[in-house]
Amino acid sequence: MEIVFKPSSLKTKVSIVDFIKRVEKLGKDDPRRIMHSFKVALAITLVSMVYYLRPLYKGIGDAGIWAILTVVVVFEYTAGATLCKGMNRGLATLVAGVLGLGAKYFASLFGPKAEPIVLGCLVFVLVAAATFTRFIPHIKRRYDYGVLIFILTFSLVAVSGYRVDKILELAHQRLSTIILGGATCIIISLCVCPVWAGEDVHNLIISNLEKLSRFLEGFGGEFFQFTAEGDKADESKETDKSFLVAYKSVLNSKATEESLANFAWWEPGHGNFRFSHPWKQYMKIGVLTRQCAYHIEALNGYLDHSKFQASSDFGKSVQEPCTKMSMEAGKALKELALSIKSFSYPSNSIMHLQTSKKMVKEVKTTLQTSLVGEWDLLETIPIITVASILIDIVKCIDSIFVAVEGLSEQARFTKSLNESEKSHLCSGEVVQSVPHDDQDKGFVAVMIHKIFP
Amino acid sequence: MEIVFKPSSLKTKVSIVDFIKRVEKLGKDDPRRIMHSFKVALAITLVSMVYYLRPLYKGIGDAGIWAILTVVVVFEYTAGATLCKGMNRGLATLVAGVLGLGAKYFASLFGPKAEPIVLGCLVFVLVAAATFTRFIPHIKRRYDYGVLIFILTFSLVAVSGYRVDKILELAHQRLSTIILGGATCIIISLCVCPVWAGEDVHNLIISNLEKLSRFLEGFGGEFFQFTAEGDKADESKETDKSFLVAYKSVLNSKATEESLANFAWWEPGHGNFRFSHPWKQYMKIGVLTRQCAYHIEALNGYLDHSKFQASSDFGKSVQEPCTKMSMEAGKALKELALSIKSFSYPSNSIMHLQTSKKMVKEVKTTLQTSLVGEWDLLETIPIITVASILIDIVKCIDSIFVAVEGLSEQARFTKSLNESEKSHLCSGEVVQSVPHDDQDKGFVAVMIHKIFP
Repeated sequence: MEIVFKPSSLKTKVSIVDFIKRVEKLGKDDPRRIMHSFKVALAITLVSMVYYLRPLYKGIGDAGIWAILTVVVVFEYTAGATLCKGMNRGLATLVAGVLGLGAKYFASLFGPKAEPIVLGCLVFVLVAAATFTRFIPHIKRRYDYGVLIFILTFSLVAVSGYRVDKILELAHQRLSTIILGGATCIIISLCVCPVWAGEDVHNLIISNLEKLSRFLEGFGGEFFQFTAEGDKADESKETDKSFLVAYKSVLNSKATEESLANFAWWEPGHGNFRFSHPWKQYMKIGVLTRQCAYHIEALNGYLDHSKFQASSDFGKSVQEPCTKMSMEAGKALKELALSIKSFSYPSNSIMHLQTSKKMVKEVKTTLQTSLVGEWDLLETIPIITVASILIDIVKCIDSIFVAVEGLSEQARFTKSLNESEKSHLCSGEVVQSVPHDDQDKGFVAVMIHKIFP
Repeated sequence: MEIVFKPSSLKTKVSIVDFIKRVEKLGKDDPRRIMHSFKVALAITLVSMVYYLRPLYKGIGDAGIWAILTVVVVFEYTAGATLCKGMNRGLATLVAGVLGLGAKYFASLFGPKAEPIVLGCLVFVLVAAATFTRFIPHIKRRYDYGVLIFILTFSLVAVSGYRVDKILELAHQRLSTIILGGATCIIISLCVCPVWAGEDVHNLIISNLEKLSRFLEGFGGEFFQFTAEGDKADESKETDKSFLVAYKSVLNSKATEESLANFAWWEPGHGNFRFSHPWKQYMKIGVLTRQCAYHIEALNGYLDHSKFQASSDFGKSVQEPCTKMSMEAGKALKELALSIKSFSYPSNSIMHLQTSKKMVKEVKTTLQTSLVGEWDLLETIPIITVASILIDIVKCIDSIFVAVEGLSEQARFTKSLNESEKSHLCSGEVVQSVPHDDQDKGFVAVMIHKIFP
């Protein structure tokens, strides 16, 4: 019997150890998660102690339950989300309470027999209407929780069995406990190691740009495989894999980015972010970054063919300008990320962008001259395609530059005097030297319109 | 004064009319939204009437509040989401209630003075631990709401000022009202015009495939612009735009797809979906569909160049096989969508897939023979790139086919006898004739692993 059980108990042990390791990793990846857990625990313990200790308990009464409930549902990971929920809850409770009282008074005019029917109809109509408004994108984005609490409070007040004068006392009690709970959440969330949604969306945009940059910087070497054989190649292989896969997370970053930007809207000014920081512009950069990532995804499929291209003459002639174009495009992106990180005008990326554009011309000429003569199609087609997609990527990066420039103006990034002179000289050139894809712009406009209708 | 106010009042009128129109459109786009609003209103009215009518009110007591609260927070748009929240709420309340009682008993052993301190510590530790588990992906996906309710109920029970015997009575009351509220939600959600998350994810996958199919079917004509001039072209222009943009929604479909598939997991069998329908396989198809959409996004950038290609000789020679390849690839996708829609084996798409693969070979030969001689690079590069990306898309569609085939097996799609014979003859050929990209598979594996770690 023991022998039969041992493997399974060993298995459980292994899976428990595995589970603990994974949980540990979660905490190590972002220690703010552990801090958040303690913050929530602190808020609930504080509020529940107020409720538990008798002298205060007598004051607040049974409604103290609502303080705990408020903390549990309002306390979110980021400060913006907590503020959003707290404000929504407070306001919705107030509005719904007043409307509920009105409904009760209105129904009482019909006499005690008709009252329940009238009240039932009122609750039905208002709840149906309020539920439907939750489908309206603008309301869903910003006031979804408020509408939920509106429905809850309105039903509770309208249906409560008490007379109006007792309700007023109850409402006062309940509102004060909700304010107590909400204020505890908001104060702890804003003051104890705050997690700002604004900072998170700022960092997300930066890290996404950096991921694309790393791919582009490494792509040339990977595709044409001009790295030296031996130890070095082996060593680099491990890091290789990470930069070739890292960009994939950019493809699906839309949902996170949008919700963070929405919560950032609620946050007060902090650090380098003013109250009316241009979060919309971040989303614009995000849309363009993803567009660039889609092209990179198409590019990524060609890394498999790379084995035989290194040897072909055609490949060798295109290798240098292509690699340099990709490298410079990557550097331009890196500088863009850096300028957002340091809240400064993206003047350093102009140079790299211009070099990469020069390389676009050179790649085109090289292709033109090299293509004369007969080549093995299996070798030339992937190279031409890769070069062509890389040229598209340079175009994408140009529009990202314009968007980051827009951000730097709207958020008043620092711009030293000679930098501002430089930008006057260069940015016009940058913007005009490659004509912008009208379609891309249209798409951005459509996307932005969808995000902010 | 009147003149000053009129424009603004006119403006308000216009914006109100605009708002009403938009709300109307929301309802028309998906009438189930209106139905959902009425369902929620019905559930709340029913539960609140139970609470309002005196004889019943006396039985359930003040805890009736919890029935309304349960309905408000548990009733979600899809049946799966409602079930998920309802089950989570019921189970979490039970577990937390028992644990809370245990904590209370344990704390009382320390004497009345130390009791609040011990209780405070217990609440702090358990809440912190529970909050942290909400960051674990698996728990976040399926039991997030349950953990929230666990925290709430545990704090409430542990901190309530009552003795244990009164708590038992209270717990019985509260649990029964929560069950009343939850059952009302689940019954109405499942029986009155149910909105199945499973059906939604099924339809989403189908419509995504159809969107890509429409793009591919129209792309050849659009890129090479061989449509006749005049009235016909004008007529088609309006539909053109929709099919050229429709696929863009596929790019960002991941979040919706995942949450729907997660909720579908909770749903009982209905219609053609059994209880253990392979929802994971739908996500696999979704990942591959998006991969295909990324390539299409790269392709879409080349539609701008199309003006001058129509005239070039090189373009004319490649036009026919390329257009046919794109068309057949589109048809293969359409047939895949149709087979999922009709729950039948995707035998019809095999033919189109094979034709499109034949065209891949033909395109390659045509390129090879046409490329001899000197061509204007500005004309040839986009055409070669487009052909090359189209070839990648055919590869993508092949892996989508394999995934749909997997779904048809796992979900036991109908397969007529001669169809099953056909598939025996053909599917092996299909699977083997184009070698699968190992990298793609790896990516899918990584994605799937992320979704179901």
